[in-house]
Amino acid sequence: MGIIVQKFGGTSVADTEKIKNVASAVIREKKNGNDVIVVVSAMGHTTDYLVKMANEITSRPNSREMDMLLATGEQVSIALLTMAIQAQGYAAVSMNAMQVGIITECVHSKARIVDIKTNKLKEHLDKGEIIVVAGFQGVTPEGEITTLGRGGSDTSAVAIAGALNADRCDIYTDVEGVYTTDPRIVPCATKLDEISYEEMLELAHVGANVLHPRSVETAKQYQVPLRVRSTFKLEDTGTYIIGVDDMEIYKPVAGVAADLSQIRIVVTEVPDKPGNAAKIFELLSNSDISVDMIIQSYGRSDDTNDIAFTVAKTDYEKTMEIVKEIIREIHASGVLVDEDIAKVSIVGAGMVDRPGIAASMFKALAEAGINIKMISTSEIKISCLVEKGQSNTAIKALHTAFHLDAKETAVVMGDLPDV
Amino acid sequence: MGIIVQKFGGTSVADTEKIKNVASAVIREKKNGNDVIVVVSAMGHTTDYLVKMANEITSRPNSREMDMLLATGEQVSIALLTMAIQAQGYAAVSMNAMQVGIITECVHSKARIVDIKTNKLKEHLDKGEIIVVAGFQGVTPEGEITTLGRGGSDTSAVAIAGALNADRCDIYTDVEGVYTTDPRIVPCATKLDEISYEEMLELAHVGANVLHPRSVETAKQYQVPLRVRSTFKLEDTGTYIIGVDDMEIYKPVAGVAADLSQIRIVVTEVPDKPGNAAKIFELLSNSDISVDMIIQSYGRSDDTNDIAFTVAKTDYEKTMEIVKEIIREIHASGVLVDEDIAKVSIVGAGMVDRPGIAASMFKALAEAGINIKMISTSEIKISCLVEKGQSNTAIKALHTAFHLDAKETAVVMGDLPDV
Repeated sequence: MGIIVQKFGGTSVADTEKIKNVASAVIREKKNGNDVIVVVSAMGHTTDYLVKMANEITSRPNSREMDMLLATGEQVSIALLTMAIQAQGYAAVSMNAMQVGIITECVHSKARIVDIKTNKLKEHLDKGEIIVVAGFQGVTPEGEITTLGRGGSDTSAVAIAGALNADRCDIYTDVEGVYTTDPRIVPCATKLDEISYEEMLELAHVGANVLHPRSVETAKQYQVPLRVRSTFKLEDTGTYIIGVDDMEIYKPVAGVAADLSQIRIVVTEVPDKPGNAAKIFELLSNSDISVDMIIQSYGRSDDTNDIAFTVAKTDYEKTMEIVKEIIREIHASGVLVDEDIAKVSIVGAGMVDRPGIAASMFKALAEAGINIKMISTSEIKISCLVEKGQSNTAIKALHTAFHLDAKETAVVMGDLPDV
Repeated sequence: MGIIVQKFGGTSVADTEKIKNVASAVIREKKNGNDVIVVVSAMGHTTDYLVKMANEITSRPNSREMDMLLATGEQVSIALLTMAIQAQGYAAVSMNAMQVGIITECVHSKARIVDIKTNKLKEHLDKGEIIVVAGFQGVTPEGEITTLGRGGSDTSAVAIAGALNADRCDIYTDVEGVYTTDPRIVPCATKLDEISYEEMLELAHVGANVLHPRSVETAKQYQVPLRVRSTFKLEDTGTYIIGVDDMEIYKPVAGVAADLSQIRIVVTEVPDKPGNAAKIFELLSNSDISVDMIIQSYGRSDDTNDIAFTVAKTDYEKTMEIVKEIIREIHASGVLVDEDIAKVSIVGAGMVDRPGIAASMFKALAEAGINIKMISTSEIKISCLVEKGQSNTAIKALHTAFHLDAKETAVVMGDLPDV
């Protein structure tokens, strides 16, 4: 007995037959004696279709109107799923973000949730009703419709679970859980039974597409036990994402991932003057461009440095505008762009205080003949920039080096292998 | 300079190209120096598509969820039309019913508007923005989404025009205005330059599909000057629907229409006892079934009457359930159903105090060899029930008899012809 929040993505509700199956999965949880809140995304390709129409109207659709348009996708899903649950004899009610009170800041297309009203949700739960909530959308205190951006429905679900102090938030998707790496690249990748918020967060940031980082962050913040599981294999228990202290078993490296969505920009021959590097990154930050890896090469004879950094491909044009302006200002010689890169990362809560892990990573890559262009690290993650063509080779080498290939057994905490 | 409300139906916004054309029509009105509010329906077959999906889920979709589902259609239209207006360089903003505050009673699928909040509308008009409002939908004081039923968007537009005391409400559609009768049946039907609310109301009730009766009623109530015009022929001025006192010219019979949507039910051999007829119509009324024409045949030798009445075909099953119950209760002998009927009507403010009109109608029908099954009249309308197969013949005969065929000239008031 408790409150369970379930979230079903677009592929899970792609057509009316699938919606009926989702209704069964929802009712199964209700039959377990739980209060159930379901968060759904737009059906299959609905969002793409709406975006296509907007682009037929204008190449630069207004972001407020785009949110007004896209929010309809989820509203269709909640109505149909509610009908399907009712048709199976269970009381259910749909609610859009305005009706729930999913309050966001007033930033269109990527608003952050600032508050979730729980009074109406609790009223319906008290009546024994299953509540079907539109994901991805929010509303400002002034009644403007917003959307939450990529991974928005996951974030809606986790935030509702947090607000209601739910017992668990289950993210239903088309994969069976979180894997040690992408099974399409490494067929012997293994599904993880559990992973910590911190590891999942890093994995999400470095290319694992199972969950959007924002939803993991929110789960960590509210300590919502999160689970990723398959809509189509309900017998599978999926992967639990929980606090690191709650984990029973883990490996020093939980997973390996590659991110192919970045490009590297090199500003060449930057005069070695205090503040020049800061100026570059300050201006980029002012324009909302996230810089990921940074490296500065010292020691040219001419008292200049090359400053290299990576940004998302989607920020390419904005970045170049800014960089070209800076070059004139600080008298750098030019800019190089390298699109041919991949960032491969290993993530694991067990690498804290284990400097040997980094050395093992570099050695494994070297043995696979892979040159490392840049490195960045956090407490539980090490990322190396490599040539894009070598990305898969790197992933396979690291997966093997860190004993993640299937048929290796997980290691009980306190008995870490010497990697 | 004034406030103009424009309404565009589903065929006018059927695709993105058409939406761009609508944007031009909107801007044209704005360029005339007016404040403009546009009310739009869902695109083309969107509503049909949504209904189809609901029916795939369940044969009896919940009406609250149906409203939640259908309301998305209009929200898509307002976002796209607003983008199209902005793309042509004009400030515009979309608003759904919840944002405007189109308050309705809490009856799903056919709610009536009880109030329209004007404060937000006025705020946007004051900023010089064109406002694009979702038609067909409303919201209850508790925040539940409702829809207004058939002709709902027309009603939304007229009600907004009334609330804002607008100078005119233009209903854009795929016909050029209101005709003396259906031009598909009578090719020499003529477009009316103006018609009174009362006449339009009767015409709408007896089969002219240009406007829904509820929107005309609302226009009459708030004395909103209404105009029906073509989206596709903007040079045409359409038909003005105005107060009868404001009309300059009219004919005794403004229009002729046929309604093929009814069936006739005859309850046979009803014992001639006070209250029996009342019982039938009271029970039908309690079940929300509108009875149109009623005739009771007196004078059987056995002290029974046949009671005949017409109802909408869509109410057939509900009606029969009730009638069969009544038959048992009042000891009538049985029930006959006649689907083969058409109601042909003539409408005109000029027929008040002119008993000759009815006689002319019956004579014209008789000369065309048409038998009249039932008759009903109001101050400005006479309807005759005829065989369905004779409907078009009846319409043509009446159109000619009342001098409505094209090339006849309209008659100045006070100089009525002797029909």
